[in-house]
Amino acid sequence: MGNIFAARKSVDPNPDPVLMGSHLDTQATGGRFDGVYGVMAGLEVMRVLATHGVDLSARWKWPRGQTEEVHGCACHAGSGVVAEPYAGFRIQAYRQIRQELQGELRAYGYRGTAPARARPFRAMFEAHIEQGPILENLGATIGVVAGIQGAYWFDVTLEGLACHAGPTPMEMRRDPWRAATTIIESAFAIAKTKAPWGRATIGDLKVSPGARNTVPERLVVAVDLRHPEPDVLEEMVAMFREQVAQTSARTNIDARIELIWHMPATRFDTELVGVVDRAAQDLGFNRVPIVSGAGHDSLHTAQFAPTAMIFVPCAGGLSHNEAESATSADLAAGANVLLQSVLCVANN
Amino acid sequence: MGNIFAARKSVDPNPDPVLMGSHLDTQATGGRFDGVYGVMAGLEVMRVLATHGVDLSARWKWPRGQTEEVHGCACHAGSGVVAEPYAGFRIQAYRQIRQELQGELRAYGYRGTAPARARPFRAMFEAHIEQGPILENLGATIGVVAGIQGAYWFDVTLEGLACHAGPTPMEMRRDPWRAATTIIESAFAIAKTKAPWGRATIGDLKVSPGARNTVPERLVVAVDLRHPEPDVLEEMVAMFREQVAQTSARTNIDARIELIWHMPATRFDTELVGVVDRAAQDLGFNRVPIVSGAGHDSLHTAQFAPTAMIFVPCAGGLSHNEAESATSADLAAGANVLLQSVLCVANN
Repeated sequence: MGNIFAARKSVDPNPDPVLMGSHLDTQATGGRFDGVYGVMAGLEVMRVLATHGVDLSARWKWPRGQTEEVHGCACHAGSGVVAEPYAGFRIQAYRQIRQELQGELRAYGYRGTAPARARPFRAMFEAHIEQGPILENLGATIGVVAGIQGAYWFDVTLEGLACHAGPTPMEMRRDPWRAATTIIESAFAIAKTKAPWGRATIGDLKVSPGARNTVPERLVVAVDLRHPEPDVLEEMVAMFREQVAQTSARTNIDARIELIWHMPATRFDTELVGVVDRAAQDLGFNRVPIVSGAGHDSLHTAQFAPTAMIFVPCAGGLSHNEAESATSADLAAGANVLLQSVLCVANN
Repeated sequence: MGNIFAARKSVDPNPDPVLMGSHLDTQATGGRFDGVYGVMAGLEVMRVLATHGVDLSARWKWPRGQTEEVHGCACHAGSGVVAEPYAGFRIQAYRQIRQELQGELRAYGYRGTAPARARPFRAMFEAHIEQGPILENLGATIGVVAGIQGAYWFDVTLEGLACHAGPTPMEMRRDPWRAATTIIESAFAIAKTKAPWGRATIGDLKVSPGARNTVPERLVVAVDLRHPEPDVLEEMVAMFREQVAQTSARTNIDARIELIWHMPATRFDTELVGVVDRAAQDLGFNRVPIVSGAGHDSLHTAQFAPTAMIFVPCAGGLSHNEAESATSADLAAGANVLLQSVLCVANN
């Protein structure tokens, strides 16, 4: 998978290591902080420990997932393939990833030999920009992340009948746009009924054949629905399915909903969340409890290791955008919380 | 341009030729009749004349436009580049077409040496499937085409702000879909106010960056608006521009409308339309006057030669679809009307 681990020697010859790290993002219009910050913060902690000659009972590891988001496929693939519970999507995702990645990994010299599987870890910490506006709005420096909200990814395929844009009378058409506009708006309306945490996003839409003077025969709408409460998320999905069924019947357009990925809502390790909270408190940072709206490698590591995350603010809450930004002071604060949290667990 | 002309000898050494012909279509999901029928009907007329040893005072020509519809560019390029009034779009379209086509033409051996320019023609006839359901619904065999309805092609670019699908609260987003759904529906509503001839089609839509878990920063919507009456078409365009402006202001999404192509409404040569009408009547076919909803090579040839068209029904009015179909009897009827029309003009 191109995961890279750097380990520090330990006085204990065979301890369960403590992990820090994150990923390098593959978003086409991504910024310089999403994932990268967690990698750099881990390296900075390693450097501080080396500079001060600190030896601890647990080894240190800094993992880096090479590929958080692979084309239309499951996210956080670097950590996801390692995590056993990823198995439900593992076969399909892994096959696609293998084909896409192996050539690239060889070309870049990152093709490793160790199998991508879970090993015993004492703890995993991931520092990350919030990718949302909550910390900035509250004037907080550190988000103590309790968990990650759940998400469903669907492809909604709408099939009508291709015909010529000129001669075909409007009332004779079976134009899938007649269903698509209503379905897209219903996704937004459903998120609104579950405000403030409900989220709906139409990240992509493919038109076939995509000719300017031809009524499309098929639209494929990429839908992303999220909520931190599993029950509420299931309710949103049920509402959405009902809307698709009703709209498809009313407009005489065939509709098919395909589940592409489900990211279950994840609660982080209570003890480790407490460690992060105390570290931030001891360092005197303004901190708030928060739930992550985005998926992270920690979603997967939480399946095989006690995991917690540290959020810092980013400008305007903007992420997956080249304008993504964060202040040096906030980034340093997050790295210090990471350092203290790791020291606490390793010294425990 | 890859236009191919076949000419029969004439007793008159230097007459203005009579043209027949059409194009080979480049629709990705096109059928076997759009354009091809007009080419085959012209060949069949040539064969009948040859079989019966008919010599006429005008030469016969069968032109074939190599490329009706070039990627997102102006339509009917084979005839369009020949037609001088195409000049308004000629430079941009021609440059793009030249780049796309010249390599292909060389590869296929269709790269000619004669310049693509208008020459004097006595008349031009194009036989074509209707590409709509009117003839079938009326039980008519021949459509006597009075002209071609006008069309506008626009690209509507909607710019919002890319952000992460999970953490970004709904009310903080500038999601261009909020404008797009309303604008697409307004195009359909505008066509409806001008029923039964108003047409609106969204043939394509591009999403940027098109990542499933990123709110799009940009949508580009391909809009096609048509009506046979120039005044009504202009009114539809004004209504659409107003809707885009209002929706863009209401949703806080930047909107830009770019004119890609305008196909003006075209009236065919009254005398030639009468020739087609009489030929269909003399042959005893059930015929109706009709306006073409689609553009055709005849749109361009009408700029430099008296032009008329002959429509035959196609199954379900379906076109730009691989299921496109027409009966042998109807196709033969259209070819016979073509033969008699050509004989009438050439013998005149």
